[in-house]
Amino acid sequence: KVLELIDGLQSADIAEIIDEQTLEEAIAFYQFFSQEQAADILIELDEGARERILNSLSSEEIAKQFIDNMDSDDAADVLAEMSDEKKNEVISHLEDFEQASDIVDLLSYEEDTAGGLMAKELFKVDINWDIKTCINELRIQSQDIEQVYTVYVVDDKNILQGIVSLKRLLLTPDNKKIKDIYNDNIISVKANVKDEEVGNIMDKYDLVVVPVVDEIGRLLGRITIDDVVEVIKEEAEKDYQMASGISENVESSDSVWLLTRARLPWLFIGLFGGILGARVIGNYEHELQLHPEMAIFIPLIAAMAGNVGVQSSAIVVQGLANNSLGLDGLWSKLLKELGVALINGVVLSSLIFGYCFFFEASTALSLTVSIALLSVIIFAALFGTIVPLLLNKYKVDPALATGPFITTVNDIFGLFLYFLIGHLMYL
Amino acid sequence: KVLELIDGLQSADIAEIIDEQTLEEAIAFYQFFSQEQAADILIELDEGARERILNSLSSEEIAKQFIDNMDSDDAADVLAEMSDEKKNEVISHLEDFEQASDIVDLLSYEEDTAGGLMAKELFKVDINWDIKTCINELRIQSQDIEQVYTVYVVDDKNILQGIVSLKRLLLTPDNKKIKDIYNDNIISVKANVKDEEVGNIMDKYDLVVVPVVDEIGRLLGRITIDDVVEVIKEEAEKDYQMASGISENVESSDSVWLLTRARLPWLFIGLFGGILGARVIGNYEHELQLHPEMAIFIPLIAAMAGNVGVQSSAIVVQGLANNSLGLDGLWSKLLKELGVALINGVVLSSLIFGYCFFFEASTALSLTVSIALLSVIIFAALFGTIVPLLLNKYKVDPALATGPFITTVNDIFGLFLYFLIGHLMYL
Ligand SMILES: [Mg+2]
Ligand SMILES: [Mg+2]
Ligand SMILES: [Mg+2]
Ligand SMILES: [Mg+2]
Ligand SMILES: [Mg+2]
Ligand SMILES: [Mg+2]
Ligand SMILES: [Mg+2]
Ligand SMILES: [Mg+2]
Ligand SMILES: [Mg+2]
Ligand SMILES: [Mg+2]
Ligand SMILES: [Mg+2]
Ligand SMILES: [Mg+2]
Ligand SMILES: [Mg+2]
Repeated sequence: KVLELIDGLQSADIAEIIDEQTLEEAIAFYQFFSQEQAADILIELDEGARERILNSLSSEEIAKQFIDNMDSDDAADVLAEMSDEKKNEVISHLEDFEQASDIVDLLSYEEDTAGGLMAKELFKVDINWDIKTCINELRIQSQDIEQVYTVYVVDDKNILQGIVSLKRLLLTPDNKKIKDIYNDNIISVKANVKDEEVGNIMDKYDLVVVPVVDEIGRLLGRITIDDVVEVIKEEAEKDYQMASGISENVESSDSVWLLTRARLPWLFIGLFGGILGARVIGNYEHELQLHPEMAIFIPLIAAMAGNVGVQSSAIVVQGLANNSLGLDGLWSKLLKELGVALINGVVLSSLIFGYCFFFEASTALSLTVSIALLSVIIFAALFGTIVPLLLNKYKVDPALATGPFITTVNDIFGLFLYFLIGHLMYL
Repeated sequence: KVLELIDGLQSADIAEIIDEQTLEEAIAFYQFFSQEQAADILIELDEGARERILNSLSSEEIAKQFIDNMDSDDAADVLAEMSDEKKNEVISHLEDFEQASDIVDLLSYEEDTAGGLMAKELFKVDINWDIKTCINELRIQSQDIEQVYTVYVVDDKNILQGIVSLKRLLLTPDNKKIKDIYNDNIISVKANVKDEEVGNIMDKYDLVVVPVVDEIGRLLGRITIDDVVEVIKEEAEKDYQMASGISENVESSDSVWLLTRARLPWLFIGLFGGILGARVIGNYEHELQLHPEMAIFIPLIAAMAGNVGVQSSAIVVQGLANNSLGLDGLWSKLLKELGVALINGVVLSSLIFGYCFFFEASTALSLTVSIALLSVIIFAALFGTIVPLLLNKYKVDPALATGPFITTVNDIFGLFLYFLIGHLMYL
């Protein structure tokens, strides 16, 4: 019955089932799968579920049932989650020497670099071979490798020279040489390049797989796009979270404590901003006493300052993330932003002038609110444009500038402008 | 000299150069490339640059120099940008009949569906063939196809049965049948499935390529991950933009008019919210006159309400986008959110109480501000959690709930709470 149920399910689906099970259920369930499939499923599990299952097994079981059956990149990732002691124990139990040495190699790279993303399994041929030797060699190599992405061409020092497509290999006469048919115009990444950069490169050049080389160009491994999709998504999510005032990568399934820790820092900044805002208004307490009607538009001014600033900065942050933007042409960018702000500002302040004039019936207040709104929109738009560009120039993540920071600064400055203009109006 | 410069550049790099050139420069530059490369570059150009170049060419030139040399998916995308008349003219000039019929097929699908993403080029074999027939057949098919991703197995009615890896084909004796070695546990998508859904599936199952079938399972084409990466990125960006109050997918390079149009709608909502906020405060004008010091904490309360609401809703929206969240367990989610809000709220209101008490020296005001802040944080967190979940339930994009909408509603309700509590305090 269980067998019927799981037939036709993919590892990722089965992993979702196991994520929800108790340890006992999970271990009983695991009996139904081949070692290969069990290894596949393990990789897809939530970190917590995986940890629980691995903790219930001996190092030898982990090595022989799981790690020996994984691609080197996944094996290294799973091992990287263990303590140093356990890790070494598991590695000592691996039966496949090549797998063990691949994993040890991979564990030396930082998680968030090309080296941390790559796998060692790849097809490679020598540039001096003929097609016949090549095909035979590929037959041998394919015993160890599940999926063919590309065939890499290296010289006798293992320095990457190019690629040759399977199509070319199939269509070229046996006695020709690789040298005559390979493509040397290829893209590779160095092992220490950041994962974000790998994502940008694979996206820009529409690559499904990219070779990884060391400083002198020796072929180390390859990165496939499925592992980079996570990186690309996480990057986009990180910017979104920062814009929402969340300082760590959290999910709704995380603990209350983690969720609080991720959210409190930006709220402190908001609180601090609120206090500064209070000081600004406090300075004009005299005006407020004379004209208490000024108070009723405080939230409007503050909210619009925040909204406009967030809009401007979000456009800049996304442009920077897509590499379609830099500091050059800053003036033309600011000019354009000024144009947008002017149109938005004139439309919105006319509306608010109309509202004020008809419903509050005070020309001075109407003028104060509408002039302040126009100034605030222009200031907020320019400020929201400049700050992320500057942060980016000084190698700070520009996404920091969106959300609470921009909102808070614009709030305070907006209030200051509002009361300043009010003060001048009511003189 | 130009040849030296462009040697070693990829199509995407060359496209970036041409994007910046005038039409005359671009056309002169184009002379240096082979037809295949010229077609590759055309696909990578900005839409505007591509349109300009294509407008300067006759339909026949477009057909023979460009469209005939493209993959069917890219060809269909380029044609879809043209007027119906021009499109038909170009198609009538295509020399490759198969390419023409593939393109006509592809043009019938909506752009944002699996059919709109797929290409027709693929390797397929009959389930009843033996390996020898199969390899010969693949040699023939490979004349038309640049890149081998997978070999699809179909029956005599072209109904998709599974896949067979090149590795298997290389390692299996010639006289065995496909039937005996193919893998029938595969994932496919229907042609009318939304592109977002295709992205989710390829991400979840780590697919590099996915076959597309019609309603009765006949193999229509395949989608490769590079075309889906754009979809995945756009989805993530769309949520971020909505959270920032930008209602259309704009870039900083778009026109002032487009940028204004994308931003004004949410600003209207912000303005409207500000007016409602003004009405709330207006209702308590009497209290304000007696206690003008209440005004100075208006921006603090409004800002915190907005910040907390945006945080809560962003976590829910991201959870929904990753399919890791639904309405079930709503109560436990709200309970957890209540926990986070209570911790944040108690910490922040204690701080503000301390500040108020020492610097403003009014117990009533200190109590009002701190109790209001605590209530506002709790309300905003729960509201920010519920609204996106409800929108999602009623098939409205939950990202609509983040940013300006949540901020505005929370602003208004926060002010209401603040003055209500103040009113009770000062009785
Ligand atoms: Mg790794
Ligand atoms: Mg791309
Ligand atoms: Mg492309
Ligand atoms: Mg991998
Ligand atoms: Mg970033
Ligand atoms: Mg604000
Ligand atoms: Mg879409
Ligand atoms: Mg298309
Ligand atoms: Mg994935
Ligand atoms: Mg995976
Ligand atoms: Mg394509
Ligand atoms: Mg969405
Ligand atoms: Mg607010």
